[in-house]
Amino acid sequence: MQNRRTERGTFFPPFWKMDNHYVCVDFHKDFSLAQPEQVDIYTEGNYNVKIDGKMQEGAPSQILVPAGKHRINVKVFNQATVPALFVKGQTIVSDGTWLVTFEDKEWIDETGKASDQAATVWLTAGSKNFNDPSIKPSSFKLQTTPQYAASVDKKGQTLLVDFGRETFGYVKLNGLRGNGKVNIYYGESKAEALSTDHCETLDRLQISNAAAKDTVLPSSKAFRFVNIQYNGSLALDSVSMLYEYAPVAQRGTFRCSDTLLNRIYEVSDYTFHLNTREFFIDGIKRDRWVWSGDGYQSFLMNYYSFFNSSTVTSTLMALRGKDPVTSHINTIMDYTFYWFMGIYDYYLYTGDQNFITQVYPRMQSMMDYCLQRRNKDGLMEGLAGDWIFIDWADRLSKKGEVSFEQLLLCRSLETMSMCADLMHDTKAAQYRQMAADLKAKIFSYYWNGNKQAFVHSRINGQPTDNVTRYTNMFAIFFNYLSDIQKQGVKQNVLLNDKVQKITTPYMRFYELEAMCALGEQQYVLNEIKSYWGGMLQNGATTFWEEYNPDKKGDEHYAMYGRPFGKSLCHAWGASPIYLFGKYYLGVQPTSPAYKTYTIQPVTGGLKWIEGTVPTPNGVVNVYCSAKQIKVKADEGTGTLKFKSKKKPSCKNGTIASTGNGVYEMTVEKGVEYVVNYE
Amino acid sequence: MQNRRTERGTFFPPFWKMDNHYVCVDFHKDFSLAQPEQVDIYTEGNYNVKIDGKMQEGAPSQILVPAGKHRINVKVFNQATVPALFVKGQTIVSDGTWLVTFEDKEWIDETGKASDQAATVWLTAGSKNFNDPSIKPSSFKLQTTPQYAASVDKKGQTLLVDFGRETFGYVKLNGLRGNGKVNIYYGESKAEALSTDHCETLDRLQISNAAAKDTVLPSSKAFRFVNIQYNGSLALDSVSMLYEYAPVAQRGTFRCSDTLLNRIYEVSDYTFHLNTREFFIDGIKRDRWVWSGDGYQSFLMNYYSFFNSSTVTSTLMALRGKDPVTSHINTIMDYTFYWFMGIYDYYLYTGDQNFITQVYPRMQSMMDYCLQRRNKDGLMEGLAGDWIFIDWADRLSKKGEVSFEQLLLCRSLETMSMCADLMHDTKAAQYRQMAADLKAKIFSYYWNGNKQAFVHSRINGQPTDNVTRYTNMFAIFFNYLSDIQKQGVKQNVLLNDKVQKITTPYMRFYELEAMCALGEQQYVLNEIKSYWGGMLQNGATTFWEEYNPDKKGDEHYAMYGRPFGKSLCHAWGASPIYLFGKYYLGVQPTSPAYKTYTIQPVTGGLKWIEGTVPTPNGVVNVYCSAKQIKVKADEGTGTLKFKSKKKPSCKNGTIASTGNGVYEMTVEKGVEYVVNYE
Repeated sequence: MQNRRTERGTFFPPFWKMDNHYVCVDFHKDFSLAQPEQVDIYTEGNYNVKIDGKMQEGAPSQILVPAGKHRINVKVFNQATVPALFVKGQTIVSDGTWLVTFEDKEWIDETGKASDQAATVWLTAGSKNFNDPSIKPSSFKLQTTPQYAASVDKKGQTLLVDFGRETFGYVKLNGLRGNGKVNIYYGESKAEALSTDHCETLDRLQISNAAAKDTVLPSSKAFRFVNIQYNGSLALDSVSMLYEYAPVAQRGTFRCSDTLLNRIYEVSDYTFHLNTREFFIDGIKRDRWVWSGDGYQSFLMNYYSFFNSSTVTSTLMALRGKDPVTSHINTIMDYTFYWFMGIYDYYLYTGDQNFITQVYPRMQSMMDYCLQRRNKDGLMEGLAGDWIFIDWADRLSKKGEVSFEQLLLCRSLETMSMCADLMHDTKAAQYRQMAADLKAKIFSYYWNGNKQAFVHSRINGQPTDNVTRYTNMFAIFFNYLSDIQKQGVKQNVLLNDKVQKITTPYMRFYELEAMCALGEQQYVLNEIKSYWGGMLQNGATTFWEEYNPDKKGDEHYAMYGRPFGKSLCHAWGASPIYLFGKYYLGVQPTSPAYKTYTIQPVTGGLKWIEGTVPTPNGVVNVYCSAKQIKVKADEGTGTLKFKSKKKPSCKNGTIASTGNGVYEMTVEKGVEYVVNYE
Repeated sequence: MQNRRTERGTFFPPFWKMDNHYVCVDFHKDFSLAQPEQVDIYTEGNYNVKIDGKMQEGAPSQILVPAGKHRINVKVFNQATVPALFVKGQTIVSDGTWLVTFEDKEWIDETGKASDQAATVWLTAGSKNFNDPSIKPSSFKLQTTPQYAASVDKKGQTLLVDFGRETFGYVKLNGLRGNGKVNIYYGESKAEALSTDHCETLDRLQISNAAAKDTVLPSSKAFRFVNIQYNGSLALDSVSMLYEYAPVAQRGTFRCSDTLLNRIYEVSDYTFHLNTREFFIDGIKRDRWVWSGDGYQSFLMNYYSFFNSSTVTSTLMALRGKDPVTSHINTIMDYTFYWFMGIYDYYLYTGDQNFITQVYPRMQSMMDYCLQRRNKDGLMEGLAGDWIFIDWADRLSKKGEVSFEQLLLCRSLETMSMCADLMHDTKAAQYRQMAADLKAKIFSYYWNGNKQAFVHSRINGQPTDNVTRYTNMFAIFFNYLSDIQKQGVKQNVLLNDKVQKITTPYMRFYELEAMCALGEQQYVLNEIKSYWGGMLQNGATTFWEEYNPDKKGDEHYAMYGRPFGKSLCHAWGASPIYLFGKYYLGVQPTSPAYKTYTIQPVTGGLKWIEGTVPTPNGVVNVYCSAKQIKVKADEGTGTLKFKSKKKPSCKNGTIASTGNGVYEMTVEKGVEYVVNYE
């Protein structure tokens, strides 16, 4: 997956360390059978089978397991692709409850007996994509479905095909025949497809005396326009494509009384779906890599759309790779911290403790790596090989001890203490203390009382004068600030045009979240309409990696010094999904897996909003207008919170006032509540 | 290689962690060209090419490099097999001087420029087996040559084929035709081949209506005898085999006036050659794995036979695997220490400092693993998952703090200090101090003055009474003992029949080395004739994993509770190669790569001995009889040391007396010296 990027036909793998799979995996599970059972065994790799520790001759495709308690071990070796096992009996079946190890630390002692000092580390088996012996997991591909051109402009042996909106998949040349060359130039914009010298992706085919047949290009690409130029005696009937997609179900929805916002939500949704693939990727045209900063936002959007857990955990594992840690995740210091924070959120939204158990050792070694790179003041600054990214922004200083990095480290230490608690690791208190100490240090080193804001960095031990938005906005929704400090940051940073503006949807995500957390939903709606609406006005059919309203025409497509370097379908462009779900429908968990949660609907001045927010085993339905709130949830115990000028009413719910015109009502699962208020 | 073991047809991989290769490798080298050069590029894997950092379009099979200074980068990705590169120009060619990295820590900054904070770790490229674009390194196989049966006993549809001596390769069924099943039972002994129920390896074929053709079995096996049973309408013309071998040149030789010893040397040599394959393996029938204890002895034998460096370094790297260290090498504590000691010897014999540079980081992490597993007294005892092996011996205690393990750790720390010196690592002094402290502790805790010997272990902080040979004999050739202590050990342990006897050639290796180091070559010759001669008398055509002269007939073949469990061709059986070269021809380096070395020929009572000992770029020739020594060396500066009752003479050498009848003479390279003495 990480190795599918091409740049104008050139293979372009990531620059950070890529780990390979474990080549030899021992799978086992204990069964208790009422009666004997015949079990079929299929693997991808060489294998052997043990029943109760006794090796079976050869590589048996079927075993008979007697009644009673038995342990089945299957050891699978595969250097080329991941060792995989499919077991099919009446009750003995492969699933995620099997245990796996990569080294069993068991040997034959002098007397010929197997010894096991119980030092073997067992993890739970990954379990997907092996339910049919003839379809090997290594051949896994996402599904495809045909799509057809919206319009075609044909001039001689040149076709410019427009698929109507940004899409992703395999171009199909129907009825291609004859002799000659085909050059295929892909464009997310028309200008890019027409720029044969500068389009970011292309394919070149050499066809020799072919009879008419449908030719599907071997690698998938992102495009709206395809510029196909061929020569010689070549001819073709038409061009279509196979749209490739992850079959994730849309469980979160949002509609409101504003047409433009509905359109922004739809395009966000489509943008996010395109970037939700085997993993959450950054963008579909260029990198198609798994980046932690991008992934972190995708996780959050996912909780308000697909609520697909396995894409989150696959992405977290892919980002982390194996020990030893030799660099930050994606080489970027902030991206390491987002990885920790993503685990915090994942546990909060899903309550999946098993994943924490599996990943905790790698969290520890990742945190050890960070802690050992602190300087004498206990702060992290860029060492050789570290990329301090923060954001794509001009003149953004990365020198010295950047406050933003310390803030994320603090949040990461809080994640460590939470996970250590879950693992009953006595280090929990230590992590908690480190987080508290660091938080105190952040205020002491970076908070500028005159500016009522955090400054950007310390250089040579001295805080700079420079105020940027990053640390300040994160501190708001981390809830690290007092109410007075929050108002200071709001006025002096967030609403202060003299502080460098953000031009990426990536950081607008957090900027708008901070404003929402401050209750400025109406302000944020206007920002969304102007910023995301601005992209739509510029012809966007999916949201972009970067958008600067000051730019004009084809200037929008340029980035990284290349005229079409910018990705026009970037996951981080889809943040309205998250904002609408969390801060307008207002649903968020307050304990793991939505055992408890809050609903704080805010219309932000809209006539009405409505939608669903997914939970592990259902959804929360919310409707809110200026006078009525309707809620219904499938699980957990919710607390509806809202403001009302008059005393609100609900037929089947008990509303309590908490003062200052704020009311609360408990929402039991399966019950629909209609609240009238003003 | 580690995954070719089968046990009666069942796939049997190692139980320790198997690491996979790095999937994405960046190769680079800087060139300075007098004129432009056309360069062909072949890889095994997807790749891209950069010249001076500029990516070339597509995957170019040929590039034109202009005159001047240029850097060529080729990045190769291959999940299934090791990424490999073959570059063929006039001067730009692939070889071991290219540098490689698995993560380049280079990224595109905000301005579109490539940044590199020079944190990338570059290693030197491995370089072998890719000299022809059509022969991929992953398809590498050892060479084969046909061999024919010495005798065949045919009874109906059963053939017992005897190849005359132990051999290794692929059985070939010539002119096999018809319909039916073939069962092939392999035997290192006749008894094993005949035991269809208990032979260790077998093959089963199902042949359907085949026209006559030669069928080569797909996997290689070790055998002298092959029992072939077929049924149905099957027929075959004859059985032969393809002998598979590593093409290593025999550069060390030994001949003497004793026929039996010459035969023992020949059989040792053949045994060692069979076990010298892609790596040095333990034995050819059963495990065929790379084990560190076995490998360590193979390295030493190799310096007196093939002097093949790349098999040593490949074996050392295969044993070590990747970080993180999660268990001892092969799970065995002593085997971890042999790995360090093997690096010490490798550097001494070859002077290959580049290998030390490559391996040093993994030595550090391996040593860190050991040091953190010491107990409160700073000693190592078996923790969960640790195998304390020492030797296959009945009733050998592994409890508590075993002195043998501390001794090997001490030697390993000495290796660390030597390598740290070479790497200019300031930790050298620390390692040296740890070694010195541990050595003092070993004497204080384990040396029993009454017994004049080290005891076997401490249990609950108290030394036991038990004396075994292991620690005592290693302490002799490590030169840790005073002359008085050496004599004590010799009399009270080595020559003391009440101390448990050694029954493996593995530990006899060190026992006899210790006696040789004490100047007891005559005693050792008798032991060799009796012990190795004993195996020959029992029909050995290669030397065994274990030999107990007290056993009779087929009892010799049993081990691990299985009647044919014993390996009859085991590398550690070949130790006479090492003893003859180092302690009779008496050649050993005194500084790396034989820059300086000593020759101390000892006949051990034989009329004459002669032979060659290989050095990095040549050999040392030695002849010695009771009255004459002849030496000639191709490189380095040697010191011939010998005893003489009368004043010796040499026409072209200057002999100096060092007292007590001992004489020394400097041996310059390329000069033949004849010394007459008495």
